[in-house]
Amino acid sequence: MSKRALSVSREQNFPEWYQIAVRDGDMAETSPVRGCMIIKPWGWGVWERIQGELDARIKDTGHDNCYFPLFIPMSFIAKEAEHVEGFAKEMAVVTHHRLKNEGGKLVVDPAAKLEEPLIVRPTSETIIGDAFQRWIKSYRDLPLLINQWANVVRWEMRTRLFLRTAEFLWQEGHTAHADRDDAMAETLKMLEVYREFAENVLAMPVIAGEKPANERFPGADNTYSIEAMMQDGKALQAGTSHYLGTHFAEAQNIQFQSKDGQLEHCHTTSWGVSTRLIGGVIMTHGDDDGLRLPPRIAPRQIVIVPMLRDKPEDAELLDYCAGLESELKAAGIRVLVDAKPVKSAEKRWNWVRRGAPVIVEIGGRDVAGGNVTYMRRDKLRDGDKIASKTSPRAEFVAGATALLDDIQASLFAEAKARLDANIVTGLKTYDEVAAYFGEAEADDEASGAFKGWVLVGWCKPEGAKLEEIAEQLKGLKLTIRNAPLGQKPAVGECVFTGEPAQEYVLIGRAY
Amino acid sequence: MSKRALSVSREQNFPEWYQIAVRDGDMAETSPVRGCMIIKPWGWGVWERIQGELDARIKDTGHDNCYFPLFIPMSFIAKEAEHVEGFAKEMAVVTHHRLKNEGGKLVVDPAAKLEEPLIVRPTSETIIGDAFQRWIKSYRDLPLLINQWANVVRWEMRTRLFLRTAEFLWQEGHTAHADRDDAMAETLKMLEVYREFAENVLAMPVIAGEKPANERFPGADNTYSIEAMMQDGKALQAGTSHYLGTHFAEAQNIQFQSKDGQLEHCHTTSWGVSTRLIGGVIMTHGDDDGLRLPPRIAPRQIVIVPMLRDKPEDAELLDYCAGLESELKAAGIRVLVDAKPVKSAEKRWNWVRRGAPVIVEIGGRDVAGGNVTYMRRDKLRDGDKIASKTSPRAEFVAGATALLDDIQASLFAEAKARLDANIVTGLKTYDEVAAYFGEAEADDEASGAFKGWVLVGWCKPEGAKLEEIAEQLKGLKLTIRNAPLGQKPAVGECVFTGEPAQEYVLIGRAY
Repeated sequence: MSKRALSVSREQNFPEWYQIAVRDGDMAETSPVRGCMIIKPWGWGVWERIQGELDARIKDTGHDNCYFPLFIPMSFIAKEAEHVEGFAKEMAVVTHHRLKNEGGKLVVDPAAKLEEPLIVRPTSETIIGDAFQRWIKSYRDLPLLINQWANVVRWEMRTRLFLRTAEFLWQEGHTAHADRDDAMAETLKMLEVYREFAENVLAMPVIAGEKPANERFPGADNTYSIEAMMQDGKALQAGTSHYLGTHFAEAQNIQFQSKDGQLEHCHTTSWGVSTRLIGGVIMTHGDDDGLRLPPRIAPRQIVIVPMLRDKPEDAELLDYCAGLESELKAAGIRVLVDAKPVKSAEKRWNWVRRGAPVIVEIGGRDVAGGNVTYMRRDKLRDGDKIASKTSPRAEFVAGATALLDDIQASLFAEAKARLDANIVTGLKTYDEVAAYFGEAEADDEASGAFKGWVLVGWCKPEGAKLEEIAEQLKGLKLTIRNAPLGQKPAVGECVFTGEPAQEYVLIGRAY
Repeated sequence: MSKRALSVSREQNFPEWYQIAVRDGDMAETSPVRGCMIIKPWGWGVWERIQGELDARIKDTGHDNCYFPLFIPMSFIAKEAEHVEGFAKEMAVVTHHRLKNEGGKLVVDPAAKLEEPLIVRPTSETIIGDAFQRWIKSYRDLPLLINQWANVVRWEMRTRLFLRTAEFLWQEGHTAHADRDDAMAETLKMLEVYREFAENVLAMPVIAGEKPANERFPGADNTYSIEAMMQDGKALQAGTSHYLGTHFAEAQNIQFQSKDGQLEHCHTTSWGVSTRLIGGVIMTHGDDDGLRLPPRIAPRQIVIVPMLRDKPEDAELLDYCAGLESELKAAGIRVLVDAKPVKSAEKRWNWVRRGAPVIVEIGGRDVAGGNVTYMRRDKLRDGDKIASKTSPRAEFVAGATALLDDIQASLFAEAKARLDANIVTGLKTYDEVAAYFGEAEADDEASGAFKGWVLVGWCKPEGAKLEEIAEQLKGLKLTIRNAPLGQKPAVGECVFTGEPAQEYVLIGRAY
């Protein structure tokens, strides 16, 4: 194997490659707190871009941001548990409000026990629903369109940076509507916002579709998702949008007076994406040299590394770099001159691993010739060699925005080609599905076998029949991802039952 | 008393006025969770502006944003408690990680007790210090300049929206330096960032100075603050910046190898402002008609209310408003057309109470004449009458940015005049101080007596002597706010001891 910047390749061991890519890319690290991560400046910069781009879209579609309490009274959760099946109970529970010093040791003060335990929000449906119940009086108050950016906590047993952590950051949209049509239109509108955002900003192609009944959010009538294909062929659920019917409104008494004076329950929706998206970006675009960040979310789009030599000529070099920096800034580009007292080769490789879209290296020859030597991170190598180019400075500056657009487009195209090429169709029976996936060593996570997904017809069962199918698939570590929207009418038979197929669904392994 | 938009005036009862101003201004409300607030869209919009403006300043001064865990292991807190006196122990303690269903009731699962309790962060010194200890190896890694935007929790007994809540939002800066000079320069630089931000963005004049020893952050060598004067004469500590010496570095083993190869402890700082600033803005600028928001933080700077009549002419009116809106948007102004199906008089007063800087009302006559009729929220009334003006549309649009700048400046000038006029100097003895403040009914919070602050000389005592003075002042509900920076050399005697004065300090009642 040729030498690459990361110590493990994707093919050797994808999960290990991911860990190293996150670490060497300076994105995040584990913390002394079980399952909680520390997001480092480079990783946080990506999250800030994600927040900024998505927040603009959420506002453009008429939503207002609010902030609700971190804690939820246990009685609220109990009420939800009553009316929702399959409700998860792994949560962080606050039971006391004081520590005290006992014989020189700090202990939890038993006298400071809360009358009612508080739950650290795993999601805010109940506390926001309680506010909706107070805020909504008449049809004039509808639709009520609220979003919140917040941290949430779920007590996960096996955690992985960005992909599954006890604490994570997300946005959660919560809306209330006068009728089903309006709520369903909202649910699908936000799914489309997520799809457009994932593809155009993250350069991450996704398939938008409806989850089967067994994969719905507890309490939802319909759950939709966008699913992205990672470079190991697994699916990552990258965002969900739920039509909740009137279930939550009934449990929480969210009612409004209609135009003709009737008291009616609202139809509600909720939708969210999280820091998990960052994991998706890494596993979609990363290569054996580290991250490759799409320019639209890269904290720095162009990084300039001056090849300093600790000599008097350095001043001229730095001057040249500063001039280039300000020209690129004026073009609206996020640019950085990395003048740290570190060897330039080391700096180059740091930025390669971090996935800066364009890395410029300026040496004495560039200054003399008025040139810029640069690498595109998305096309770093020509064979094993680094593929650097040299352009006249003015030409480089004039073309910088187009260059970044081209990198964005080329990252998307590469991922889209992979997705399109790896959805297998034409399997007719469950046995064929099992044979297709079965070849992989199902319980060897690190297996390099890339299987992608299959798209098969099924009869869209619910209840016991669906449970049985889900169990069958679970044996192969498979799940139904979603039924893609906008699909052609199904023909042929259900691969599970042999009955006439109702629709096509994607099946694959997943994160 | 003449009729005003709020049901209670500042003079009648300031604390009650504040509550009503927050509520009627649609900023926030109490939640079903003890001491935690719900920040509503208009209030959140203000926070977003504050975040945006301050974050740019934090980045411009070389700091990187990160994100650290919500939870802190109790052992970390115990270590801090060991080396820090006066350490607060009212915190939210997570002791369990699961709920379970017991006889149809949801209860805390005793089997899911955590081995080590987790504390919901009251501040992140310890968890960030732990990362610093891992991240810092050599002088090359210094200074390390980190900031975090986060929610924190302190179990406050008496809470008030924005001013003191159990959960609040803030930014906390944490930095590590090679020596005292560099750390002290950072401490004062960020204090100055806060001062400039408070005055130029919030239009809230402040006095920057050093806290006396008894008011220092536990573990700090020096604590600095900016203090703002509210309209009841009380001080609001609006931001703090701490030089922590090497105390935290010693407790947490934050060391670096110096240029000459020695292992040394870092000098650290921390600094923060919170959602409390929003309370400060309300109490600085609000009047008996509600909030008055400085244009730089107003979510909408100009609100256009079309005087709709449910008649065919409405279409032309809305068209005119939409045209005006897009012209103002093009000028970079945050503008909104409020076309809700609500009476226009009601809408006008809603925006008055919310403190939109400029409220435009467009009726048929404005459309016919090509005019714009508007009110400045900062100068709403001429006596008891509303002071509205009419300008040709093009003139209004051309002058809109200047108008907003003028409102910003005039709000600041008004508050600055109040601050300057209400710092009493020349008191020579403690008895004079006591007599000055004593006239107010010290324990009647709602008392309208406006006392402002006094600036007196003192001998800058520490230890027991200082404790005694603090106790004396406490009897009058007074505290020493700070010793203003840049003050003239002190002359005369200490008002407390009669010894030669070392410096001047501000004394007042405070939030």
